[in-house]
Formats: sequence, C-alpha cells, structure tokens
Amino acid sequence: MNISEERFLVTYLILGDKKSAYEKADDICLEQTVEFPRQLVPEGFIRDEIIGRIESFEPAGANQFKAVISYAQETTAGDFAQFLNVIFGNISIKKGIKISDINLPDSILKNFKGPRFGITGLRNLTGIENDPLLCTALKPMGLSAGELAELAYQCALGGIDFIKDDHGLTNQPSAPFKERVSLCARAVTKANYKTGKKCIYIANITASFDEITGRALFAKEAGAGGLMISPGITGLDAMKYIAGRNDIALPVFTHPAFQGSFVMGDNFGISHGVLFGQLARLAGADASIYPNYGGRFPFTREECDDIKNGCYKKMGDIKRVFPCPGGGMNLDRVSELLEFYDKDVIFLIGAGLFTHSPDFIENCRYFKQLVRPNLTTA
Amino acid sequence: MNISEERFLVTYLILGDKKSAYEKADDICLEQTVEFPRQLVPEGFIRDEIIGRIESFEPAGANQFKAVISYAQETTAGDFAQFLNVIFGNISIKKGIKISDINLPDSILKNFKGPRFGITGLRNLTGIENDPLLCTALKPMGLSAGELAELAYQCALGGIDFIKDDHGLTNQPSAPFKERVSLCARAVTKANYKTGKKCIYIANITASFDEITGRALFAKEAGAGGLMISPGITGLDAMKYIAGRNDIALPVFTHPAFQGSFVMGDNFGISHGVLFGQLARLAGADASIYPNYGGRFPFTREECDDIKNGCYKKMGDIKRVFPCPGGGMNLDRVSELLEFYDKDVIFLIGAGLFTHSPDFIENCRYFKQLVRPNLTTA
Repeated sequence: MNISEERFLVTYLILGDKKSAYEKADDICLEQTVEFPRQLVPEGFIRDEIIGRIESFEPAGANQFKAVISYAQETTAGDFAQFLNVIFGNISIKKGIKISDINLPDSILKNFKGPRFGITGLRNLTGIENDPLLCTALKPMGLSAGELAELAYQCALGGIDFIKDDHGLTNQPSAPFKERVSLCARAVTKANYKTGKKCIYIANITASFDEITGRALFAKEAGAGGLMISPGITGLDAMKYIAGRNDIALPVFTHPAFQGSFVMGDNFGISHGVLFGQLARLAGADASIYPNYGGRFPFTREECDDIKNGCYKKMGDIKRVFPCPGGGMNLDRVSELLEFYDKDVIFLIGAGLFTHSPDFIENCRYFKQLVRPNLTTA
Repeated sequence: MNISEERFLVTYLILGDKKSAYEKADDICLEQTVEFPRQLVPEGFIRDEIIGRIESFEPAGANQFKAVISYAQETTAGDFAQFLNVIFGNISIKKGIKISDINLPDSILKNFKGPRFGITGLRNLTGIENDPLLCTALKPMGLSAGELAELAYQCALGGIDFIKDDHGLTNQPSAPFKERVSLCARAVTKANYKTGKKCIYIANITASFDEITGRALFAKEAGAGGLMISPGITGLDAMKYIAGRNDIALPVFTHPAFQGSFVMGDNFGISHGVLFGQLARLAGADASIYPNYGGRFPFTREECDDIKNGCYKKMGDIKRVFPCPGGGMNLDRVSELLEFYDKDVIFLIGAGLFTHSPDFIENCRYFKQLVRPNLTTA
C-alpha cells in the first residue's frame, strides 16, 4: 500500500447528550492516534495531521450522535492491520461508541485488492448467472474423511453450488486435513463429471498462524475450488494475505466464528455491515457467511439488511460480494428469504437439508428447486 | 500438540431461568462441536465423545447459572486456533453466555509452552527481584525515530524498567519500523551502559500477517529486549507462534487493542481474567497490558482483580505472568495501586510521566521512587 496524503473517514455512533458525545468524539481523535492529552501534543504536523479530526457531528436518535472522524492515511502506515488499529484499537475498550461506516477515498482503496472474484467472479465459476446460489456444510465433526467426502458427493449430485467444511473441521484425528480435503475435492470433481455442473468444494483452512498458508496451498493443489477462514480466530489480515496470493487465487468465504462479540453490543463495537460487509471485502472475502435472522442466532432483519448493504455498497473498485446467510435456516423459509435477498445471495443450509426426507440427494434437489424454480435443469 | 484422551473444562455463565439456562448449556454442547441437532448425530463415538458434556450446572446469582462443559481434546485437533473455536467460536454470536473460566488437565497443558519468561524470568532479566516494575510508552505517533529514541534514552536514564513502543507505532513514514527499533534499542543500550541497569526496550511488532515474523526477527537482531503484539488484530495464535520460536526467545507483552468488545458485554463474551490472563498465558505472553480501573477506560476494580487472578492462577506448569495495568494512570495513584497489586505487577504510565514536572528524567525517577521507595539506588 502506498501512503497518500488523503484522509479516510470513519463514522462512529456515540451515546450521550450533545456535550458528552462531542467530548467522546474528540477523545476518539486522540485515543486512536497520538494517545496523548491534546495539550502535550507537539504543534505542527502531529497536531494538524496525525490527530483525528471531527468532520461532522449530528444527532442520530435519542441520546445518540453520529460523528464522522477523518484520519490521515499516514497513521495506518499503509498496513491493513494498523488500519484496523486506527479505526477501532483502543476504542474497542470504551463503551457507548460503535463504528457504523467506513469511507475510504479511491486513492487509498486502489491499494486494496479486495475480493478477487466477488459476485461476478463466483457466478462465472459456477455458471449460475442470474439466480441465488446454494451452499451447504459438511458435518458433523467426528465423521471420517471418507464419510464427509461421501456427503460432499451426494450434495454435489443434488445440485448444491458450494459445499464447505463445517467451520469446526480443521485437522481432527477423525478426519485429518489433508485426507479430508483430498477426498472431498475428489468426490466433488467426480460428481461434477457425472452432472456436468460446476459445484465447488470450499476447504476450511482456519488454523494456527504457521499452518494457514500451507493448508491453503495444499487445498489448491488437492483440487478444492475455494477456501474458508474464520478471521475472528486468525486475524482479518491473514484472510487478506491468503486472498491476495496469486499462487492460491481461490474464492474465499469468511466465517463469523469468534467475531460475534464485536456486533453483540447495542452501543459498542462494530456494526454488522462494517464487520461482515465492508471489512470482510477489504480483507478479500468473496462471500460473507453469517447467521440469518429468524434462525438460532440473534441477528435481526435490520442487521442482516445492514450486512447486505455492506456487501453490495460502492467502495471504489472493490468488488461487491455475496452475503451468505445461514445458521439454522430451513427449507420452509426459502420464499421469504428470496424476497428479502433477491438474487445476489448464497443460501447456506446445513442440518435443515437432512430433515426434509430420508433421501439426502433428493433433499438437495428440493432445496435447489425452491431457490431456483425456473432452472430445474441447471 | 499431541492429542490426549482427556477432556478440558470451560465454565460458562448463562443468563436465564433454570430451564432456559440449562437448554442454553445443552445447546453450547452441540453448537461448539457437531453444530447439528442431537437427534441427527450418529450414535457411538460422535454422540458419546465429540459432543460437549455438561459436567456441572448450578445457580450463579439472580437469573444466572454456571455451567461447566467438558470437551474432548480431539475436537481441538491439538491446535490452539481450533481450541479457541471450540470454547467460543459460534457462541460468540449468542447473547447471555459468557466464558468465566477454563481448566485444562496437565496432559493437555503440557503441550502448551506458555510464557517463556513469566514473572520470574522478567525479574531475572531486569534484576528487580522483589518489587513492582515500571513501564512507559514511547509516544506520540508522528515523532521521528530519532525523537522517539531520545525519549527512550531519557526514560532509561530515569530508571524505567520497560520502555515500549506505543501500540499505534508500526511502520509510519514518520518513524519507520526498522529505523525506530534500531535507534530505540541503541538508545536504551547506551543508557544502560551509563546507569549499569538493565532497562528493556519492547518493540511493537503488530503488523500484517506476512510481516510479523520478519519484524520480530529484525527487532531481536537490532537489540530490542522484548516484543509487543496486539492479538486482537493479529490473532492470538500469531502471538503464540512468535513467543514459541527459539530463534526469537524474547519476552512478549500483549496489548488489548481491538480486543475490548470481548469483555465489554455484561452477559456475553469472555471474562477479563480468561481473556487477559489465561488465554494470554496460553498464547505465550509474559506480561498482559490492560487499562486499569479508575483511568480513562471503564474496567472496574473487580475486573482488574479478575485479570490479576488470571495472570497468577495455577495452570499446570504454565508460568505466572505480570499484569501490566495502564491506560490513564497517574503518579498520584501509585500508593493505592501498590496496595491493590502488591509486588508482582508492572505499572505502565504513559502521558502521566510528562505532566509531573518539566524535567522528564526527573519525573521517571520520581515515579520509580514512588513505586520502589526502598530501592532508591536500584
């Protein structure tokens, strides 16, 4: 990343009356940059440029204000990890402050590769041009690699577009990483040969710091068509690194495990749209998995709407990406969700696929038929 | 890490009446392992071993219960990243559930190196055997590497034991990493030569995924005596990796930036003692930086007590580590804090050191005199 002289904008929702909220906004400007009382900050460059600046401040509801604060790109050192630190590092430890938007000028955005595939790229890979896509997860943990591969084979025969490892499958003795990924990738290839379709197997590469890259390379070599990472565990920049490597060049799905606390607080943390949309895109994700409203997790319809917006909204040339709602979805809700999400969505159904009928392949076909009623042959 | 057949224990505080809290506990057992409805889970090994088990369940206050859940080590694949996923991955996205303790049997703990130095090791390095230690931070961002080094020199002359980079100093053009670390390490060495003391310079190596290791190796080579990482940004396992490398072998300070959301929720997330104590130790930190109560952050006295306990409590052979309270501390509070923390503590004072008098070196000496009144010559 090159350092430009431009500033980028972060919007914070701040709890309090006008005076106390403004003081908090002013405090953010210091806390996230110099971490020093203003009167001790040297005059000139540091005081004029390094300290954050309140660019606007306005009411945003009862006892809440919206402050847009700009930071010099210099503060980030042109580094995504330090960018995260500037927008939220110490503020994460304060209450009554929540990030609701980030806005980077093109001069900064052009240093981000963003998602390699995005919505258009994933549509090209799967051959599904104008309809929602389908995803399921291989589970439960404890099955052997062979059993998981058999499940993957059936899902692919049933017409699912993306078959991902459950996010808890890493390198357990019951299904070691290399064996699992090799067998699942082969099973999906075999099914594709039979169906003529382009189902993609997504390998979970969430792992210890020194294993992540090796697993990504192995998965690529073994024929996996995409990768999944839980950046709450690995750090967002690990995902960005993997997504950016040209010798890997596979679609990346981001999983929300260990990230929930960032969005659980009503008045602190990071908004759903920023975390699962904007930051996920900046970190290279092509699809963002999260628990849909009305399932077994507490996300609301409004929060899912925020995620959709974060996945779709204009951010320079950073590609738009797929929201991938899951988490306790079932087949009965497909029509409601088709209305809410329209076509640019990947529906993720896990256990729900097992309960419709005893015929698993038939259940997959039924799911597909519900989601793409006009595409029965695709 | 080798996989043993033993199980480890995680204590969750769960909000609700007895029935709903028990249901939530039962749900955790599934969500964190098989992520599958119980009736669909195959009988035998998976149902008997892989699914979490409620080992105890008891009231823990008004409308709250304490559930101790055991997991098979197999679920973690012997991997710290996956261990984090098992204890908190999807649960992070649920409300009314908070981790309050973790308890690993020795057979699992022996696979963790833990902190290389711990309290005893840092005391040996600094030569301060029985008193609290002193730390300060180089700031503000925007100073040149030379200016920061001059500050480090003065702090070291003034008798501070640990001089760390401010956590926002990474590789900004104003003070590029290599230049800053080289000059600061040299300045502290020069001061030590003059004073005969063993002040340690702690370089911040929080960086993008592919830069962390290189920065740690450079800092070591340049003469830094310790490293600081913000695992909220890099992932905890990055810290564990750096702490464990024998060709680095430097003390590691953990910084709480970007981790705050985990502890901000009263009824969700991770307790202060687990996050800043137990997990920090498992991830190799020798000292845990966090904002002290009564400063500019909202941590309470009880929460700081919890961190102390997490730093000190028995965890097999995993070393005890230093709590390092900072965040808006000032010199006036030293006597109160000496009483609260006793001797096994590193007091971190940043801006407070600048405000006592215009003579910065004298301010450092005054700080030291307050903290170690009986050691005026040390």
